[in-house]
This record gives sequence, structure tokens and C-alpha cells, in this order.
Amino acid sequence: MKNLSLIICCCSFYLINAQQILSPSKEISVAFSLTDRGAPTYTLTYKGNSVIKPSKMGIVLKDGTLLNQNFALEDVKTDTFDDHWTPVLGEESAIRNHYNQITFHLKHLDSDKKIDIVFKVYDEGVAFRYEFPFENKVDYFVISDETTEFNVTGDHNTFWLPGDYDSQEYNYNETPLSKIDISKINRDNGIALQSITSNFRVQSPLMMRSAEGLYLNIFEAAVNNYPVMHLDVNTKNFQLTSNLVPNAVGDKAYLRTPSTTPWRTIMVSDDARDIVASKMILNLNEPSKIEDTSWIKPMKYVGIWWEMHVGKATWDYAGSQNAQNAESQALIPTGKHGATTENTKRYIDFAAKHGFDGVLVEGWNVGWEDWFGNWKEDVFDFTTPYPDFDIEEVHHYAKSKDVKMIMHHETSGSVGNYERHLDRAMALMKKYEYPAVKTGYVGRIIPRGEFHDGQAMVNHFNFVAQRMADNQLMVNSHESTRPTGYHRTYPNFIAAEAARGNEFNAWSNGNLPSHETVLPFTRLLGGPMDYTPGIFEIKMDVYDPSKTEQVHTTLAKQLALYVTMYSPLQMAADLPENYEKYLDAFQFIKDVPADWQTSKYLEAEPGDYLTVVRKDKHSENWFLGAITDENPRHTEIKLDFLSPSTMYKAIIYQDGEDAHWEKHPKSYNIITKTVTNKTKLKLKMAAGGGTAVSLMPIDQ
Amino acid sequence: MKNLSLIICCCSFYLINAQQILSPSKEISVAFSLTDRGAPTYTLTYKGNSVIKPSKMGIVLKDGTLLNQNFALEDVKTDTFDDHWTPVLGEESAIRNHYNQITFHLKHLDSDKKIDIVFKVYDEGVAFRYEFPFENKVDYFVISDETTEFNVTGDHNTFWLPGDYDSQEYNYNETPLSKIDISKINRDNGIALQSITSNFRVQSPLMMRSAEGLYLNIFEAAVNNYPVMHLDVNTKNFQLTSNLVPNAVGDKAYLRTPSTTPWRTIMVSDDARDIVASKMILNLNEPSKIEDTSWIKPMKYVGIWWEMHVGKATWDYAGSQNAQNAESQALIPTGKHGATTENTKRYIDFAAKHGFDGVLVEGWNVGWEDWFGNWKEDVFDFTTPYPDFDIEEVHHYAKSKDVKMIMHHETSGSVGNYERHLDRAMALMKKYEYPAVKTGYVGRIIPRGEFHDGQAMVNHFNFVAQRMADNQLMVNSHESTRPTGYHRTYPNFIAAEAARGNEFNAWSNGNLPSHETVLPFTRLLGGPMDYTPGIFEIKMDVYDPSKTEQVHTTLAKQLALYVTMYSPLQMAADLPENYEKYLDAFQFIKDVPADWQTSKYLEAEPGDYLTVVRKDKHSENWFLGAITDENPRHTEIKLDFLSPSTMYKAIIYQDGEDAHWEKHPKSYNIITKTVTNKTKLKLKMAAGGGTAVSLMPIDQ
Repeated sequence: MKNLSLIICCCSFYLINAQQILSPSKEISVAFSLTDRGAPTYTLTYKGNSVIKPSKMGIVLKDGTLLNQNFALEDVKTDTFDDHWTPVLGEESAIRNHYNQITFHLKHLDSDKKIDIVFKVYDEGVAFRYEFPFENKVDYFVISDETTEFNVTGDHNTFWLPGDYDSQEYNYNETPLSKIDISKINRDNGIALQSITSNFRVQSPLMMRSAEGLYLNIFEAAVNNYPVMHLDVNTKNFQLTSNLVPNAVGDKAYLRTPSTTPWRTIMVSDDARDIVASKMILNLNEPSKIEDTSWIKPMKYVGIWWEMHVGKATWDYAGSQNAQNAESQALIPTGKHGATTENTKRYIDFAAKHGFDGVLVEGWNVGWEDWFGNWKEDVFDFTTPYPDFDIEEVHHYAKSKDVKMIMHHETSGSVGNYERHLDRAMALMKKYEYPAVKTGYVGRIIPRGEFHDGQAMVNHFNFVAQRMADNQLMVNSHESTRPTGYHRTYPNFIAAEAARGNEFNAWSNGNLPSHETVLPFTRLLGGPMDYTPGIFEIKMDVYDPSKTEQVHTTLAKQLALYVTMYSPLQMAADLPENYEKYLDAFQFIKDVPADWQTSKYLEAEPGDYLTVVRKDKHSENWFLGAITDENPRHTEIKLDFLSPSTMYKAIIYQDGEDAHWEKHPKSYNIITKTVTNKTKLKLKMAAGGGTAVSLMPIDQ
Repeated sequence: MKNLSLIICCCSFYLINAQQILSPSKEISVAFSLTDRGAPTYTLTYKGNSVIKPSKMGIVLKDGTLLNQNFALEDVKTDTFDDHWTPVLGEESAIRNHYNQITFHLKHLDSDKKIDIVFKVYDEGVAFRYEFPFENKVDYFVISDETTEFNVTGDHNTFWLPGDYDSQEYNYNETPLSKIDISKINRDNGIALQSITSNFRVQSPLMMRSAEGLYLNIFEAAVNNYPVMHLDVNTKNFQLTSNLVPNAVGDKAYLRTPSTTPWRTIMVSDDARDIVASKMILNLNEPSKIEDTSWIKPMKYVGIWWEMHVGKATWDYAGSQNAQNAESQALIPTGKHGATTENTKRYIDFAAKHGFDGVLVEGWNVGWEDWFGNWKEDVFDFTTPYPDFDIEEVHHYAKSKDVKMIMHHETSGSVGNYERHLDRAMALMKKYEYPAVKTGYVGRIIPRGEFHDGQAMVNHFNFVAQRMADNQLMVNSHESTRPTGYHRTYPNFIAAEAARGNEFNAWSNGNLPSHETVLPFTRLLGGPMDYTPGIFEIKMDVYDPSKTEQVHTTLAKQLALYVTMYSPLQMAADLPENYEKYLDAFQFIKDVPADWQTSKYLEAEPGDYLTVVRKDKHSENWFLGAITDENPRHTEIKLDFLSPSTMYKAIIYQDGEDAHWEKHPKSYNIITKTVTNKTKLKLKMAAGGGTAVSLMPIDQ
């Protein structure tokens, strides 16, 4: 009851002192005030209804300074902004950045320090951050806590990941806020390294739906020189509080003036499509720092990768990632090594034949016999190929076929070792004309004591993007922190994994059939994901009859993912020999582009379904992707986005009559019909199913 | 009394089971046994007298395995070794490596792990280490403690440094073991970063003298992939126990089989000269891993450095290392910047005129306005010169004068940042033909939580030496861990600071007059020191009348240091304009070489005095250096080391009649006489004084 009276007190205080700012649409309103103790506090309403109750804001410094109370308001400035910008690669060829801004200039009465709190209010949500201005002297400070609250109004249905400091590769849990409890979930999920220190902590982006049908998303943007923010959950009063990932000595962030925190974001709408289509996170990041971006290109690729996941081949040359085999002076090949020159040429041939841009080869370099699980520092040197991988020959062969090679740098979390070798590793890439690299961070971080999500690692991932940009190289990071829009600033950071990817279906309990319907509301808000869709051989028993693992979708849904999961980097992840068996379905993967003029989210419900159409950046072709969760779904789509008075050939890749992700996942059929912008397209999706449609103008 | 009975028990046990090994001279005897609890234990005697009482040995693993008890002895092997090797640079042109070896193959009954304990017994001492053999499987393990004891027999007079994990830049304290107590010493000593967690912990090398006149030194050799060993002191029973420097999470060392610890060394003699002349530490290191060493050369150098220490110039361009000045967009020069093109040319001219090989320039690169004290990560990029330092012009000018430039890389302890830039920094050195670099590590280490003396930093220093070797570059590290002979393995690691250097005399309470008489018994056992002798303007009031700081030696002693402090890298540290004032004394610095055929320690008493003669590697010239502590000293030296039937011109640089380090430090005179191998040379040294002598054959 004490808490309640405090809130009432704050509310009444608000009526007197709060300063308001509205979104351009005027549907979102943010009110800011100082409590009678000088604590910064805000509320948020949407269409007049409370979304965020009075919530405190602030920072605690390591020296004991409490920058969350005893402030005086010195000045307030408002501004409005409306502009368009052009992403190098994206879902849209132009992005509107439209918001109202208010800055509260605060003075901390205890320490004389000045802090600004800046709000930007967009039509789809609000962002705020703390700014530490330069006050005529450089001021170093260490943040030991951020005490930002997000006090939501009820026991919302929530899609949450455990607040793990080292991994986001979980399935989403869908529960009311009051039922969040990590001790209750299955953690036998294929994640080798789990760093969880509270059962009531979750990750952001945190997607919620209120009983009244409001969609709410709490996230952050432009995380740079700051740790990742997780959220501590009070399951009784639905108070969410920022939890910053600590470093090796327990500190959170080292900053100096002038600097800022990342943006804390709250998106809200009564239409879920507004959340999933929002470009707010991107808008909150700095414009590109790369002047000449002509070398940054979308890529569709195949690679020597899935065959390791399914057990057909190994990354290593001399045994199955078995340290014991690393000991002998001369490695004795097992014959199962995937990254051979011969096998690489097979993939190059396949890529050339079917029009893929690139070939990824994992396991090309020495070190895989003893790379994981022992916090080993000197693992890979990123420059020495295995004896059966002739990098020179591969280079010439790929070039002769007009196929680009994609480099692979697995660090095993030994980041110091990677940084020590990075310049030489990039020199090798330049020598052999690799335009892009896939990086990996499987395992505990070295420098020891650091987490994947701490300030040091955030800086590392951004540093790699910057150094790769210096050398005109693109990067696709796996097991990194989840992105928060940094690819606007460094567009060569074309994709990341940073969520549970398709690979978990090969060797763990896999991904829930609803997984891909949640990702666009969470992980994908921060940036493109290298999800590696396109698995046609759904069940792993084709490789070994004793295997029970499987992809938890139908084959048709695997096709739809190329549209529903936006990424300028798209893998056709299955084996060439599997694609050869289903060339009619494979045609969709060949046709679908990876860069777009425009995108329209037609239907969206987190955890249930998503229907998207996108128009190719360089043609009049449209592509539709529709997916459902574990439930079958029938829907009808108006093709009114097509150009009027144009006939289109629609090729519809859909679930077969008996399709079902578990029972008949490979049942599909392909229908071709002629459509116009008046056509209504009926889509029938199986349990765990989906539909992919290509729509190409018919020459008239 | 309980302790005593235990020792008696052990001793009696020894009589039954101990295995003995003798030094080649048979004067040193080591006995090893397992106690009835299976704990490895050793004793050491010298000429029949106990030097180390029964002392336990062992390791504790992080997983709880106690590798210091419950062992069974499986096998014992003995060996003997006698050979010579040729150092690239050194005090001797050939070094004898002569020892008896015994290996105890132990099996740990609790864990089934095997450990070997290996002893090498030299004429001047014993070394032992723990070896973790490969037992047909790679075994990763984490060391949480090493429990090696060195139980000395009495309350020896001891030269000790506080057991600081980040610095060795202290004056030596000379007390009995029983009086060691860091809380009692003056710590207002100019050391900005002090990391001391126990008042009863000291550093090694630890030099002692017993009441009976035995000289005893405890140290370690070949520290590689292991932290530095400090020593916990029991001031009651004189038990010394190893204390390994922890990492950010409190672990000590990450190892895997096969591997070894560093060698733990105990030198003992009744003649102090045996300790100071010993090459045991070098012998315990691996032979050179550099095949072509033709590019590794001794260097005498001058540089833009002392003028910053005395306040005449600044490292930075825009203020006196004041972060506030770093903020403005365009740095505004103060006019005090030392590293200008013009000033550099002045030093190049001076070096060329007087025959110096190199010129060091500190403060040449941007970043010095905000480099220290704030645990800042991105400080220097090691490649961007200040606007008033034209690296291209300097390069051409130096080349035209046949002078080499010496690069400077101050990291400010931000090691990750340095490693990220290292390849580019070395590329710059190669481009402008810098043959060597002086590195610096002033400040708290980043990765945060690491200490200068931890395993990660030991590896870093060795890594830098290796990478520099890959690029045929020499390295001289300051504020690194103290060396333990790694310059045998990487001879391009030509020098290090890693002790209290001459610079402290410029701006702190300075170095005790005895300081340089202790260093050869401690710090110098591990490798050459870049002490930067040669300060002629002893008192800092010449730069500013209000200054009271001074060098705590006479001018003549500054000359003698070029002989007493062996290093293949020797700076003439004072300003050119100061040398111009004393060109007669300066002649000795010009004449003395930095690489030797042979060296003879004629007189030695730690903390009191040292007299050394060395023969130039490339001529028949000899050089003598004699120094004393705060007490005047008269001595007579037989020149019987000279070639018979050869006349030598002796130039004797000695303290003046009224010389005194404090009262008349610059009082000196120079005497020239003809001598032969029959001559006895009388040396008269003032308080804090010394004598330098050059002995050159007279053409007959």
C-alpha cells in the first residue's frame, strides 16, 4: 500500500509540474517532471490511455554520486524534425525520420554536474537518453548502475528471453509478466554458455501485448560505448528496471564528457504492424560514417556449413573437434573435413549455376581440433588454411566463375587473440578478394571476466565493423550482442546472428514453430539477421536414422522466411544435393532479392503470424512471405499494392494439403496464376507453415 | 612449538627417504622427498650448511585438486649437462651452461594426474619447476595457487621491494626479514599506481645476506604464460611462500598439458660476486627462436626525453598533459612541445657529431593531452604525429646523418588498444626505418581487472617481443614485468625498465645512493635495464630555482653506471647542451661500448659497492666501473685482467676531492696514465660516488 500512495503522490505532483510533449500524430504523449526529491520521472500515454506509469530515471556513479535525485530543472528546449534519408541497403529505399524533441537541462544539486535528458517522440513510440555535456572540463566518470524504470500498467502478455549476459539464443517464452521466472524454463536447449544471475531478468527488445490490445515494445538504440541493457522484472507490480551488463570488475560503463547513453525506446500501438514496420531504431542511430558505400552490396550465398551441423562433415581436419587430436605433431585427417578445395569447388559450381553471389567456407583454417570449451586463448590465427584447403586455387576458381568467397573468422570468444590478428586476417581477405566475413564468438570471452553483452564487447563488435569498413569489407557477426541499428552508421555491418538461428534445429530441441513470428517484433528491430533459412530436408533422420531433430517449419515456410526475415545477406543454407532434389521450390530462393524499394507489413501478430510484401529495389517484381505459428492459418490478401493496369505472373509456393511441420513438413505445391492489383489471394498455411509468392510483371 | 615439532618430524623423515643431488662443484646439495602425507618437500645446503629448511612444494587447482599432497614417487631420472652457447648481445661472448639435473616423476593419488618436479643444480644455485606432462590426453587446468615454500634459516638481512602487482619502481628497503612491513615504508615516492594487498609480501628477485655471510637470492626464470611470483613473508619463522599475481577474476594461470611453470631459483654463495655474475637465469631460458639475428645490434642513444622530466618541455602539444586541452577541436600549441621537427634535428645533429647510434623521440604522436590517470581506453593510435613533428622529414634527415630513429609507443596501460594498433604501428616503423621501439605501460591496465604482473600481461610483453621479431624490430619495454631471461629466447627484447629508473630523480624523492649497488643483485639478474644514466646536471634547480630534486649520485658515478649496469641499449640521458658543458667527462660515454667479450665482477657487496671490468666485444679495450653507496670508499684494483706485455692508456674519471652526491655532485677530475697488467689502480670514491676507467692499448 505504501507503493501505491507514492504513485498517487507522484501523479498529483505531475498535474502541477509535468512538461508534456506529443508525437507528430498527437497520439503519444510523454510527460516529464521532477519529484519533490528532484528525481527525474516520466509517464507515457497512447490515445489518452496510460502506457507507462510514473517511472524514475537516472544513473548511479561508482563514486557514489546519485544522478537519479536532487536535480533542478534549468532549462527546457523543444524541437521538431522531419526528413528522409537513404539507406545503403534496406527494406525501404528512403526512410522518413519524423519526431518532436524535448530536452530537459538538469543540474544535479549535490555534485553540480549537468545532465540533459532528451526525449524524441515518434508516431510509433518514444526514445529518451541521458546526455553528459561538456562543461568546459573533461569529466571522467564510471557508471555503476542505471536506474531507469519502465513501469507498465498491467500484467501484459510478454515474449521474453532470459536475461543472459552471454547469449540471446533462446526460444521466446510467452507468459504474462507475473509469470516470468527463469527457474521454470527448460535450459537444456543447446546453449553451451549460459550466464544468468537472476531468475527475474529478461532481455530487450521486450515485446508485450496488453489485455486491451495495445502492443508495447521496450528496447534501446545506438548502443555504443555502453553495455547492453537488460530488464529486471518486478512480477508483482510490473515495474521493469534497467540492468546493465557488468564488466570483469563489476563496473558498468566508463564514460567521459561529452557523451550520451544509448536511446531507451518504448514503442506502442494498437496495430502490431506499426511496431514491426518501425524504422525508429535505425533513425535513432547516427548517419553513415562511410563516404563511399559503392562496395557494400547485398549477398545471397551458399556455403560449407549446414553439412557440419547435420554431422555429414566436420569443421576440423583431424577429428570431431576433439582436443586430443590436436596434440600430434602432424594432423591426421579423418576424411570428414568439409572445407576441402574439392568440396569448395562443388559449392562454387552450384553458386555459379544458380546465380548466388557468394560461398561461405567454415573450417578452412587450422585450430578446430581444439577450439571450444576450455577458455583457450590462442585458438585460431585466421590466416593459416588446413592442408586440404588451397586458398590460392579456391580464389582463382571462384573468380573464374564470378563467385565471391566469404571469409570465416571464428574467435571462440577469444577476442584479444582476434584483435591481435585482425590486420593480418584482413590483409589475407584483401589478397584473395573476399568481400565479406562471417565472424563468430562461441564461448566464454577473453579478456576473462567480460561478457558478450558488456561495454568492452559492444565496443569490440563496433570496432570490427569500423576496421572492416576501413578496408572496404562487410561483416556478418554471429554470437555478438544483438544489434541496435549500428548498421545505419556502418552499413558494411550487413547482418548479425544474435538470436536463436535455424542451426539450433539441426542438433538441439530446436526452434518453436512460433519463433520466426516473434523475431520481427524483437531481434529484427535492431538490424538484419543471418537466420540461414532455406532448409528443405527438414528432418535430420535423412542423415542418420537415429536422429530425431528437425526444423520446426514446413518447407514452404522456409521459403517465406526469405521475405519475412529482412536481411541484405541471405543464405540458402541447405546442401546443394538437397536443393537439386527440389529445384522447383528452390526457384523461389533464386528469384528473391535481398534489397528492396519498399516493404509492406500486411498482417502481423507477434507469436502468431506475419504477412509481408516487398518490392525488389531494381525491378518491378514483388515478393510475398506469409508465415504462421504452430496453428494452421487461412487468410486472404489484397494485391492492391501492385501497379494498376499491370498483369503479374504469381508463383505461389504453398503448403501441401497434408502439410504439417511435424507430420508432413516437405508437402508443398507450386501454383502459377496471373494476377492484378484487384486480385485477392487466398493463402492456406499448414501448422508451422507458410507461403511464398513471387509476383513478376508479364511483358505485354 | 607445534611448528617446530613438525619440522623435526619432517627432518627425521628426510633421513630415511630423501634423494640428493649435488652441484657440479659439489658445494650445493638439494634433497627431495615426499612427507608421510605425500607432500613434495625439498631442502638445500651449501658447503654442508642448511640454506633452505624443509620446504613444501605444490600447486592448487581451481577445481579443488590439491597438487601439493598425496603424491607417490613413480620414477627418478638424473642427467648432467655442460655446454656453451653464444648470446647475440651480452656481457660475455660465450656462456657456459653446466648443471646436474634430477627429475621426480610423481603421481597424484587423488586425481591420477602426473606431475614432474625437475631440479637443475648449478654451481651458483638451484632451479626447480613443475612440469605437467602430456598423458595421452590434453588436460586443461586452472591454477588458483602455488604453494612453493622457501624456508630460510634465519633473520637474514634483506633487500626488498613491496609486493606490488603493478609496479617495481620502488627504492629497495634493507631490513632483516623480521622487520619487513610495507605499512612502515614511505609510499610518497612518485609511483602513481600502487597495488598492494598485503603488508608482508615482497617481490623477487629477493636478495639476502645471512649473519654468517652467505648470500642468498630467490628469483624465477623463464616466466612465460604464467604470472609473476611474489613472496609472502612470515616474519616470525622466515618462511617465504610463493604468491602468484591474480587475473581479473582471481585466477592465477590457465594451462594445459604439456606445459611447465617457470623455474624457481635459489642462488647461494659465500662470495657475492658469484650471484651478480651468474648467468643461471639466462641459461634456464630457451635458446633463441630468431634464426637470423644479424639485425639485432647494441645501441647507444640520446633523445627528447629528459627535457620533459625536468620540466623544460612537454610530451604534449597543447598543454601540460591536461585533459581539458584535449577537448578543443584544434589543438593550440603551448610552445613547450619537445618533439618538434626542429628539436629532433638538433638531437640528430648531436648524435651524429658524437657517434651515437640512435635518437629517441617521445611525445611525437597525438594523444598526450589526455593520456593518463583516467583508465582511458582509446588513448594513442601510435601512427599519427603531432602537426609539428614531420616524420617524413625527420626520417630523411636522420638517414642523411646515418642516425637511426627510435620509436616510442606509450600505451598508458591500455593494452587492448595497443594490440589493436600494433600491426599498423609496426608498419609505420618499417616505412620510416625505425629499428627499435621503446614501449611504455604507465597506468592501470585495460583489459580492466588485470595487473602488470599477471599471466595476461606476461603474455602480452612476450607477444610484443615476438611480433617485433617477426618484423625485425627491437623492443625496450618500460613499466613491464621485470624480465626473467626471455631475451635469450627473443634477443630483440634488448632491454626493459621494470625497476626504479634514473627518471625518478627528476621529480620525486629520487633513488637512494645505494640503489644502483642493489640492482645488479636483483633486477639485472633477469635482463638488461634501460636505466638511462649519464645525468650531468645533477640538481634540478638549474631548471627552476624552486626545485629541490636531484640525482642521488656524483657525476663520476653516472659515468661508472655505463659499466656497472649492463645493457646493450644505453642512453646518454642528459640534454645535449649539458653535455656540451662537460665534454671531457662526456668522452667516457662516447667511448664506452654496449656489447662485450667478457666481464669480471671484481668487488661486490649488495647495497654497498660494486666494481666491474668489461672487455669490448670488438676491440682490446677494457672499461671499468666502480660505484659506492652513500659512504665514501677507497679501494685498490689489480689490473691483472689486461693482456700481458701490453701498455694501456688509462683514462680515469673520478670524483673530485670535495665530491659528495649531495654537496658537490659535479666535482670530478680526469686523470690519464699508462698502465699494464701489473698495475694496481687506487680508486677513491666520494659518498654516492664512483669511478669510470677506460683502458685502451697503446699502439707500440
